[in-house]
Amino acid sequence: MDATDPLYAQVAAHYRQAITAGTMPPGSRMPSVRTLMGLHRVSLSTALQACRLLESQGLLQARQRAGYFVRPPRPTRLARAAEPRQTQADPARFVGVHERISEILTRGIAARPEVNLSGACAHPSLYPTRALALHGQRLLRRRPEILGTQPDPQGLLGLRQALSRLALNAQIQLDPSQLVITHGCTEALSVALRAVTRPGDAVAVESPTYYGLLQLLESLGLRALEIPTSPHTGLSVEALEAAAAQEPRLKAVVVVPNLQNPLGAVMPDAAKQALLASCEARDLALIEDDTYALLCDTPQRAIKSWDTTGRVIFCSSLHKTLAPGMRVGWIAAGRWQPRVEILKYAQSRPNEMLGQAILAEFLAGGQIERHLRALRAKLATQREQMAEALSDELPTGTRLSMPPGGPSLWVELPEGLSSLALFDAALEKGVRLGPGLMYSNSDRFDNFIRINAGNPMDEAQRRAIATLGALCASMLRR
Amino acid sequence: MDATDPLYAQVAAHYRQAITAGTMPPGSRMPSVRTLMGLHRVSLSTALQACRLLESQGLLQARQRAGYFVRPPRPTRLARAAEPRQTQADPARFVGVHERISEILTRGIAARPEVNLSGACAHPSLYPTRALALHGQRLLRRRPEILGTQPDPQGLLGLRQALSRLALNAQIQLDPSQLVITHGCTEALSVALRAVTRPGDAVAVESPTYYGLLQLLESLGLRALEIPTSPHTGLSVEALEAAAAQEPRLKAVVVVPNLQNPLGAVMPDAAKQALLASCEARDLALIEDDTYALLCDTPQRAIKSWDTTGRVIFCSSLHKTLAPGMRVGWIAAGRWQPRVEILKYAQSRPNEMLGQAILAEFLAGGQIERHLRALRAKLATQREQMAEALSDELPTGTRLSMPPGGPSLWVELPEGLSSLALFDAALEKGVRLGPGLMYSNSDRFDNFIRINAGNPMDEAQRRAIATLGALCASMLRR
Repeated sequence: MDATDPLYAQVAAHYRQAITAGTMPPGSRMPSVRTLMGLHRVSLSTALQACRLLESQGLLQARQRAGYFVRPPRPTRLARAAEPRQTQADPARFVGVHERISEILTRGIAARPEVNLSGACAHPSLYPTRALALHGQRLLRRRPEILGTQPDPQGLLGLRQALSRLALNAQIQLDPSQLVITHGCTEALSVALRAVTRPGDAVAVESPTYYGLLQLLESLGLRALEIPTSPHTGLSVEALEAAAAQEPRLKAVVVVPNLQNPLGAVMPDAAKQALLASCEARDLALIEDDTYALLCDTPQRAIKSWDTTGRVIFCSSLHKTLAPGMRVGWIAAGRWQPRVEILKYAQSRPNEMLGQAILAEFLAGGQIERHLRALRAKLATQREQMAEALSDELPTGTRLSMPPGGPSLWVELPEGLSSLALFDAALEKGVRLGPGLMYSNSDRFDNFIRINAGNPMDEAQRRAIATLGALCASMLRR
Repeated sequence: MDATDPLYAQVAAHYRQAITAGTMPPGSRMPSVRTLMGLHRVSLSTALQACRLLESQGLLQARQRAGYFVRPPRPTRLARAAEPRQTQADPARFVGVHERISEILTRGIAARPEVNLSGACAHPSLYPTRALALHGQRLLRRRPEILGTQPDPQGLLGLRQALSRLALNAQIQLDPSQLVITHGCTEALSVALRAVTRPGDAVAVESPTYYGLLQLLESLGLRALEIPTSPHTGLSVEALEAAAAQEPRLKAVVVVPNLQNPLGAVMPDAAKQALLASCEARDLALIEDDTYALLCDTPQRAIKSWDTTGRVIFCSSLHKTLAPGMRVGWIAAGRWQPRVEILKYAQSRPNEMLGQAILAEFLAGGQIERHLRALRAKLATQREQMAEALSDELPTGTRLSMPPGGPSLWVELPEGLSSLALFDAALEKGVRLGPGLMYSNSDRFDNFIRINAGNPMDEAQRRAIATLGALCASMLRR
């Protein structure tokens, strides 16, 4: 809560926290408008506005003449995503899915679909692009010479300071000198992997995982050890332990502990600590991808926050949280920091100043917390609405993860349905989705799809979901 | 020459071309102002302005009552840079100079020297940063959403089109689809090397060469085969041939045929063609670094312009020519294009839109040719002035390359002088330079220094050169 927020938003934030924390469980009654007026010493219209905000965020529902009630957090018709059937990892192997991934991506783009349900990012309108652009205009007017000046090797100090402050949210204490600015989180992951592996080494990853990570491993000649991962609690540390014992060339684990992509899982703190302990015991580098963490409905700790030996390489970016059109990431590589600085400098030299300066000014203005609160609330609403649409349209037997934040839903289709076949059929009807085959080196996730709830729900999206439902039904009849 | 230039600039350009081409050799008399008035049908003041422009560019000198004469192109006291003593390459070996390079760079920056003679870039005031910034302001005002929109994987089409047009200057025909935008030329070289080598392979490079290339090879676990290189005609194709015969794991040659860094050499067209033929015969990838080419006093062909089999990987950037504060490079990788696209995408995802859009708009405006003409003329003057200062101050026995373009001078100190010792002593007196040891994996160039003539000559720089002269003299006496 921010004292500069309007009063009704402050009141709403109070109850949103209580609802998210479970203090006010689904179905429980919201204090009446009159009670709110007394409790918070606000006017009738302020109390009403607070309730309406929570309603628009999908947290409350109004029942006629009975007032507001906490809304059930997920539609009931679709079953909760199942735990992985695999409990053990397959042996590590060289990644060979780039061609498939890139073929799917290229086809998806070329088809110019009317509705794009792939992607894992919020709609541009949900980002403060106008405020960022104003900072940019002012910078270019006052300091045009930044376009002619060589940037600082580690990145702009003002930005590194702001990012260190931002990292406090994840309970990480970082000195600005321990950060290097990179071209997005992808470059951070790229130099992290290069710092701790050699071609032919094995790297443990979540299964399913972000296809970009698979492409990166493939391009570096690394073998992927895919570890079974729960849609709710994330990477199975037990399965990792068992697999690590069998793989002498395992050098690193890459993990997205908060809002894993595509699952949306958040690892419990105990699991995060167990993973760190396991990496310590086996002398593995722990590469933590923090891309989505700031989109969690409630703040989560980073694994890096427990790191006392410099074993965690923390990689993040503002790409999903603040500005999808900008490529500013960062890396805090602990004991590998000197090596990472060398690799970043040799690979692409420092980032240019302009983008860094825009972000530094925005962050210094202190508006990010308010932006993030609004973004999280909107994404929560959109996830709910998308889940409802899926629940209305997809066949019985469909299961769904309801992640506690972020833009993505991970959908398990009934047995026997191929997401790749669905991808093809849907593309013909102007709808694009992310078929599960993109997220693993195996064929294990062919009956899964990733659906983006990052865009405000509208009629076109509802129709697209209905199209998917009809296609699934006809494929099941065949 | 550009018909939109003012008349006096058009007249000056006419004679500049004649002087640079040698049609009007040093010492020859410039037509009198009265003759110019008749020949070009211009006013007295226009004719005078043309002569003064050429004088300010260091091409003419006024002799009292006798008119203008073509100025000797280089100071006569310093001998011309010598051809390399080595004619054969040492065996390829793993690069181990990163630590030395980075120590020198860090020390140089930390000392906050009053005068910086290292670097290889023109002063920010010589770039059209204000015009670029105006494009940026307009873009951010009209299209703030580009900060929130995911960029095109290959790079902005408008920019790729403009760069294809720019490549026509080097006689290269490129389709925009054959280009990928990268984070500077460094990332282009990084993905080029990754596309054609595996760790442990050997790569032929010029000796001396840009230290960033040595750092890159080291970071990729590649061995450098340093080929003797003339300060005048560039890489010795003969020496390359001999060395290649001895090195079975040689996979690629990286070459800067136009204004090699640090030498400033330009390879004759015949040598460029011979190098390409040699790479064809031995099945080597030819990676052409074009960074400085547009700074050549007279236009030069790229090796890529003779490439009919897709063997040349062309890497370039606008970093030195248009905007040192921006990181926009590009790569046209011929037969390796698909692999390069994968590697770039996996390594760092596409460049952000803002910088690309600014450059695309500037290039579409057609102002780059005029900017480049002005930049070349200013650099020519500054090189002359710097060479004069060096000639006045450095001890007898000093030799100097006078490159036909670019910001750098390569200076050979008298035998026995160590540039590293000079670097240390100069830094204490507030002067930074580039010691020769940075430019080779060997110790062969310790009595060389690279001097940046990119900054307008001023009293501080003149004093700094005098300081270097005094230090050299006292070191020689010891």
